[in-house]
Amino acid sequence: MSDFEPQAGGDSCPIFPRQGPRAVVLCDGPPPEPELLAYWLAGTDVFVCADAAGHPYDELPRLPDLVIGDFDSLSGRIIDGRDGPRYLQIADQYTTDSEKALLYLSERGIEEAVLLGATGWRLDHTLYNCHLLERFAARMRLCLVDPVADIVRLGPGTSVSWPLPEGTRFSLLPLNGTVRGVTMEGALYPLLGETLETGAFATVSNRVAVSPLLLTVAEGSLLVSVDRDAEPLDEDDAFGDR
Amino acid sequence: MSDFEPQAGGDSCPIFPRQGPRAVVLCDGPPPEPELLAYWLAGTDVFVCADAAGHPYDELPRLPDLVIGDFDSLSGRIIDGRDGPRYLQIADQYTTDSEKALLYLSERGIEEAVLLGATGWRLDHTLYNCHLLERFAARMRLCLVDPVADIVRLGPGTSVSWPLPEGTRFSLLPLNGTVRGVTMEGALYPLLGETLETGAFATVSNRVAVSPLLLTVAEGSLLVSVDRDAEPLDEDDAFGDR
Repeated sequence: MSDFEPQAGGDSCPIFPRQGPRAVVLCDGPPPEPELLAYWLAGTDVFVCADAAGHPYDELPRLPDLVIGDFDSLSGRIIDGRDGPRYLQIADQYTTDSEKALLYLSERGIEEAVLLGATGWRLDHTLYNCHLLERFAARMRLCLVDPVADIVRLGPGTSVSWPLPEGTRFSLLPLNGTVRGVTMEGALYPLLGETLETGAFATVSNRVAVSPLLLTVAEGSLLVSVDRDAEPLDEDDAFGDR
Repeated sequence: MSDFEPQAGGDSCPIFPRQGPRAVVLCDGPPPEPELLAYWLAGTDVFVCADAAGHPYDELPRLPDLVIGDFDSLSGRIIDGRDGPRYLQIADQYTTDSEKALLYLSERGIEEAVLLGATGWRLDHTLYNCHLLERFAARMRLCLVDPVADIVRLGPGTSVSWPLPEGTRFSLLPLNGTVRGVTMEGALYPLLGETLETGAFATVSNRVAVSPLLLTVAEGSLLVSVDRDAEPLDEDDAFGDR
């Protein structure tokens, strides 16, 4: 059973509903499946590629509005046809290309972005892209998209209620050290005011038991990864893998 | 130029030199290149596969000594021939299969392990495997291996001196919140008693300028990712991508 509905489009994602002008940023990690990119591009206002991500651009489901970066990996290969994307070269050695894209968007009032191609292959880039969710927390809502799950950050003092299909697999991970006062209702393994430490408690592969899933964080920053597909719960799940 | 020397073997890796009995743990993420697995298996005492990782096992460069897990992904597919590996089934819903492997090794006095297949694909599993470096810090030295880099944790009050080829690319990332007193000599962009916050300062893709690279951490936990291949520095690098 798949709850992944490309026709609905990423702007209706339960854990990252569209609240205003939204951007999709394609980073230059392993490229996402074309259907996944198309799903997130549905209803998106701005489409930005970081450096060589998505090159050649005419093979993407939509032509990028902007390609941004220092172009160290695109040098000599840019073909800027009259119908091609705009290019913005920023030679700043203190930011990565994904960061350049987010800074550009944030300065233009875009407060919502989805990052694809931001995980996998190199672990250092993957982790740094995760850390951008912490860095940009005050000015942008961000969602990281991996091949199977969507990942958002819940900051201190937040509560969410997500309508998710029963059986949806999800994981909680401290993003920036200790997270306190984590309460979770509607899960197979609920939590009540728990403290989560980095690596101290297995909170991977929990499941939604009753919709909506309610999550509250008192202190700290929590990454929440939620699968796009759900498998129905069965009797074995009470003894399943966490 | 490649400094990746399978004949030398992983037990001589500059950032993770062998200090005692060592294990290689193959996790069930995206499988490593056979040459990379063979490199790390050179000089390793124990080879453990987590759940279905490496199955079928006779296609690996070496037969695993042990396959450990709850076998939820191997059910009905285990063929335990007389020359096959041993299987240890642990039905514990509070630990992941990688954790089960590390707990098993740690209880048997193995204080050194290399994790392959632990990164990529699902971001939640990747992050959780990173967090295991924090969780096991007091009892095991761990090294995470991704397709291009080796990743270790430097805990509070540690200093290392690594003989690395000039031009080697490396990244520093806070593992568990703020890291204080980070000093680094021998790098293109050195640090002197710096504080590193999650996502606050781009410390990705630094380069070794002079060997050895000296790194000191006063407080907190730092992940250090070091590429196995080095490209020589050139004039452009002073303005290169960080």
